[in-house]
Amino acid sequence: MIGLANIGCYIPENKVSNLDLIDKFDIDDNFIRNKIGVIERAIKEPEEKASDLCLKAFNDLLTKQNLDVDEIECCVVVTQNPDFAIPHTSAVVHGEIALPETCACFDISLGCSGYVYALSIVTAFMQTNNMKKGLLFTADPYSEIIDQDDKNTALIFGDAATVTLLDEEAKLKPLGFNFGSKGSGYANLINKEKLYMNGRAVFNFSAATIPVSVNSLLEKLKLTKEDVKQWYFHQGSKYIVDTITKRLALDSHKVVFDMYGYGNTVSSSIPLLLSKDITSLQSGEKILLSGFGVGLSWASTVLEKNK
Amino acid sequence: MIGLANIGCYIPENKVSNLDLIDKFDIDDNFIRNKIGVIERAIKEPEEKASDLCLKAFNDLLTKQNLDVDEIECCVVVTQNPDFAIPHTSAVVHGEIALPETCACFDISLGCSGYVYALSIVTAFMQTNNMKKGLLFTADPYSEIIDQDDKNTALIFGDAATVTLLDEEAKLKPLGFNFGSKGSGYANLINKEKLYMNGRAVFNFSAATIPVSVNSLLEKLKLTKEDVKQWYFHQGSKYIVDTITKRLALDSHKVVFDMYGYGNTVSSSIPLLLSKDITSLQSGEKILLSGFGVGLSWASTVLEKNK
Repeated sequence: MIGLANIGCYIPENKVSNLDLIDKFDIDDNFIRNKIGVIERAIKEPEEKASDLCLKAFNDLLTKQNLDVDEIECCVVVTQNPDFAIPHTSAVVHGEIALPETCACFDISLGCSGYVYALSIVTAFMQTNNMKKGLLFTADPYSEIIDQDDKNTALIFGDAATVTLLDEEAKLKPLGFNFGSKGSGYANLINKEKLYMNGRAVFNFSAATIPVSVNSLLEKLKLTKEDVKQWYFHQGSKYIVDTITKRLALDSHKVVFDMYGYGNTVSSSIPLLLSKDITSLQSGEKILLSGFGVGLSWASTVLEKNK
Repeated sequence: MIGLANIGCYIPENKVSNLDLIDKFDIDDNFIRNKIGVIERAIKEPEEKASDLCLKAFNDLLTKQNLDVDEIECCVVVTQNPDFAIPHTSAVVHGEIALPETCACFDISLGCSGYVYALSIVTAFMQTNNMKKGLLFTADPYSEIIDQDDKNTALIFGDAATVTLLDEEAKLKPLGFNFGSKGSGYANLINKEKLYMNGRAVFNFSAATIPVSVNSLLEKLKLTKEDVKQWYFHQGSKYIVDTITKRLALDSHKVVFDMYGYGNTVSSSIPLLLSKDITSLQSGEKILLSGFGVGLSWASTVLEKNK
């Protein structure tokens, strides 16, 4: 069965500090640290595209992991800011890494729920087609679409990319998923020319929906909250992670939070955090991942480390 | 096991005739009928978006098929001309059809290989997550990105949409797939501001690749060409379908061709043709589908009608 073997990451070195924007947006230090939880935002170079970020994440993976690219049978990119509308960004990545012609490539268009959704989509696809090794990229460079004068978005989003090596022999495996959609609310997070976010609506949606999704998933898997060693919620803001933590009555020490130094990186937020822990999880330990946002959309999963 | 139950279609009534462009592009009737195989192109209204075409295809499905939308557990749109970059078009469709909140939604970004790829991606996803009914849409309105003065593209592409009902109880099921990618050639079919196509390069790629993909698939499934009742190639042009037919030495009466009245509809080309035959296939009959194009990318599958 296909699982997660390792994760490579890329966070641009160029940072913009929200502390420099205190006067512009009439905010304070407490708002920056405790409400949004973003002190600096990572911003890519203007000429860099999603595929460039993917390649840098792939280079990081190669420092962690021996990998023969000729063995890769599947290459998927999760993005809503692709290099081009046509072709898919996974085709560009395929060419740049020189993956074999037998490698299946496609992009998935999803936002902050994209990594968790893609873990199911890609592992199911690989499994069914008897593929043994695949690459799952996330790269959604929002710096291209942010209005720097819009307080609702300009302080939050950062650029990053990740790549997860999916492998038949990997030890960290999904036990099950919970998915959902509220398409009637899609206009609350939308890119016409620049990104528009109704922050209050997206917050309320997330705070109401994710505890239900998590509880449904645990019930389906016949697990309790105590069975979960660590919780990885999409890092939308500190306030939403704290709110979900409270509503689920979780021990906050078990809830991973870290976006202070780079911002909300959309579909990359969960794999960025998981990359630090993936190789140190112990046999039998379970973690829960939950992503939510654009769509409106959500997905939750429990991963278990096997022997 | 999940299979194809029925297909709804939408082809815009508004047509533009290539016969009116003979002088403009210095072409003749023979070129139009026998080389490209497109006499008229279907063109959507300017204000219509991909989701609007999807909804019209869905309405067609409802005339063919009883359907309780509350039973739909999965909604996927294949497109590279979405309503918006953010959110995914499947979210818009989800809202418009009023699908249940438990329905999983995502878009797949692929071009002319997209329908065949998606048949594998979505059936595997549904199967693994124990979903029983899903909707797979294709809608790629190229009229938005065509340069009307570019002879390589202006005579070929038309707008359309389809929706395939995927159902656990359906009788037409995929036996297996062959996928591939040639990312190094991605720049031969690309949308920067308008669509650019290196027609010669895409033709040569398709003519060389698809016979190999088809033969590999048949070999994997332990089938021969004689086991295939009917062949559905992506309708790129009459010339490419004829060339593949010759290279595979197929009986041309078994190779479906019809794009004269609406053009190359990208990921909708195969399901448009299949929609006419899906309910009349007989038990045990096998058909072969093969899509190719943007990426460069290809996918082939054999579907079998069970008892």
